[in-house]
Amino acid sequence: MRLATVRDGTRDGRLVVVRGDGAALADARAVAPTLQEALDRWEEREGGLRALARDLDAGEVRPEPLDPRALLSPLPRAYEWVDGSAYLNHVRLVRRARGAEPPPTLETDPLVYQGGSGVLLAPTDEIPLPDPAWGMDFEGEVCAILGDVPRGVPADEAGRHVRLLCLANDVTHRNLVPGELAKGFGFFQSKPATAFSPFAATPDEVGDAWRGGRLHLRVTIRWNGETVGDLEAGPEMHFSFHQLLEHVARTRAFTAGTILGSGTVSNADPARGYSCIAERRARELIERGEARTRFLAAGDTVEIEARDAAGRNVFGTISQRVGAA
Amino acid sequence: MRLATVRDGTRDGRLVVVRGDGAALADARAVAPTLQEALDRWEEREGGLRALARDLDAGEVRPEPLDPRALLSPLPRAYEWVDGSAYLNHVRLVRRARGAEPPPTLETDPLVYQGGSGVLLAPTDEIPLPDPAWGMDFEGEVCAILGDVPRGVPADEAGRHVRLLCLANDVTHRNLVPGELAKGFGFFQSKPATAFSPFAATPDEVGDAWRGGRLHLRVTIRWNGETVGDLEAGPEMHFSFHQLLEHVARTRAFTAGTILGSGTVSNADPARGYSCIAERRARELIERGEARTRFLAAGDTVEIEARDAAGRNVFGTISQRVGAA
Repeated sequence: MRLATVRDGTRDGRLVVVRGDGAALADARAVAPTLQEALDRWEEREGGLRALARDLDAGEVRPEPLDPRALLSPLPRAYEWVDGSAYLNHVRLVRRARGAEPPPTLETDPLVYQGGSGVLLAPTDEIPLPDPAWGMDFEGEVCAILGDVPRGVPADEAGRHVRLLCLANDVTHRNLVPGELAKGFGFFQSKPATAFSPFAATPDEVGDAWRGGRLHLRVTIRWNGETVGDLEAGPEMHFSFHQLLEHVARTRAFTAGTILGSGTVSNADPARGYSCIAERRARELIERGEARTRFLAAGDTVEIEARDAAGRNVFGTISQRVGAA
Repeated sequence: MRLATVRDGTRDGRLVVVRGDGAALADARAVAPTLQEALDRWEEREGGLRALARDLDAGEVRPEPLDPRALLSPLPRAYEWVDGSAYLNHVRLVRRARGAEPPPTLETDPLVYQGGSGVLLAPTDEIPLPDPAWGMDFEGEVCAILGDVPRGVPADEAGRHVRLLCLANDVTHRNLVPGELAKGFGFFQSKPATAFSPFAATPDEVGDAWRGGRLHLRVTIRWNGETVGDLEAGPEMHFSFHQLLEHVARTRAFTAGTILGSGTVSNADPARGYSCIAERRARELIERGEARTRFLAAGDTVEIEARDAAGRNVFGTISQRVGAA
């Protein structure tokens, strides 16, 4: 089952289910008015939503045409956005490029930061560019949307709390990062609003590609129409979503609708490309002594999607243009 | 006007207004079912809530008795909890004690971290103590609950976005802090769920004590019944709430219901006491070479409140007991 949120002038939009071919949708308000409501009462609502999705696929409810530009992020505002950095190749590359050591516990203790979650961009929203000197970058990520998570959940029980999967473009102002990290309190200004994919899918929707708490699909990144990354999201995710969840739930509980991110998808093989410019620049700096690829500029486009073995665009396409400075 | 949220078995509770004497309340569901709803449509709802509060004070609506234990935090879950560290005396003391330098930009660039906001403790909830070795501490803070804030708001326009004021107990596992900060991504496990005061008050409720984006009241902290801090919250707040808001809104917008914290209230004069144990321990370490005061233990009680010039307990009392380990 795939769910989406249609822009209707309210803060939380209206919930819809998406047809198998991704070309049509059906209003789900009779089951739950918003995705947050559905997640708040998932046990009671899931059955009705799945029945609606089946009826839509069977042609038994009237479909509405699906206009990607009419969709908000699945949760236009979320109670928490917790983002890991689970692809260690990314951490090693960007830290090496800025002359910083990865923490000694890199392989045993996940890196996680708490992101802003009250204002999330729609999958086709323009990305504001307040100041090009801040070095704006995209980051293609995989995300899990959670149900209620009790404090202290172990990794081997974490899977039952994953309700939905989606993608994110975790925009970052790279040149604001070193100053913020030097202050010791983590990212803040360097992380503006994140955008999420048009559709959120239940894990069964990708079948065997969701296993061991990892999404074994390719995530594709296009920058100004050119494919700059075609990355395996599964094998190199060092900490699985289950391990990330155990880590973050060690000292507190999470409410339904919390979004947990993988961090920038990254592969050690440079032939796979990149899902953030910083990584490309890091490789250039390491290999040639200088970073040549520029950061995002006004008018640039960024697209992020993931296709399954049958070629289906599972989560729809994050498709954003960078606004004028 | 003072607002509160009554525990009713739902995730967000039900909104009430509080009588001037703090001893009774009136159901506000006819105006807005929850505080989040009231904040989402503040322009439309504020008038009705103020009228209800006036009627309650005038004896024109039937009062319900106010049982502090029946209250949740004003927002039992919030879209964002953004916490500054605006009392520089606190930053200097705790960093000096752990041999770390304050950042060189301490006086010009606010320290702010993004906290978890999806599960917030009620003002009388037990504080879970998963492991006493983590060094659990309280932190008495002042908070502003915001309306919608556009990106790029300057400090001199920030005041109009402050809807309500309240207090917080920002519980911290001190012994988890150094390891997390060394990783560079800021606090996560070291910051379990925060509790807020029973009442949230509109700024006019404290009159002239709210000026320049600072709350000029005394915040009192009692630990096991003993007053350990009686601190001036106004003059030593180096960055005002308006300056904090300008800082955090530099690269993104905030939704109504975002909570902005001052950081641990702290005064340079040791006679005023402390609002977190870490500061007491820091002074001991600096003055005597060792920290003697222990952290929180099972069964301890912590109370935090602020009284105005007339002796009124403006926000009610955060009154928590530490759970069994």
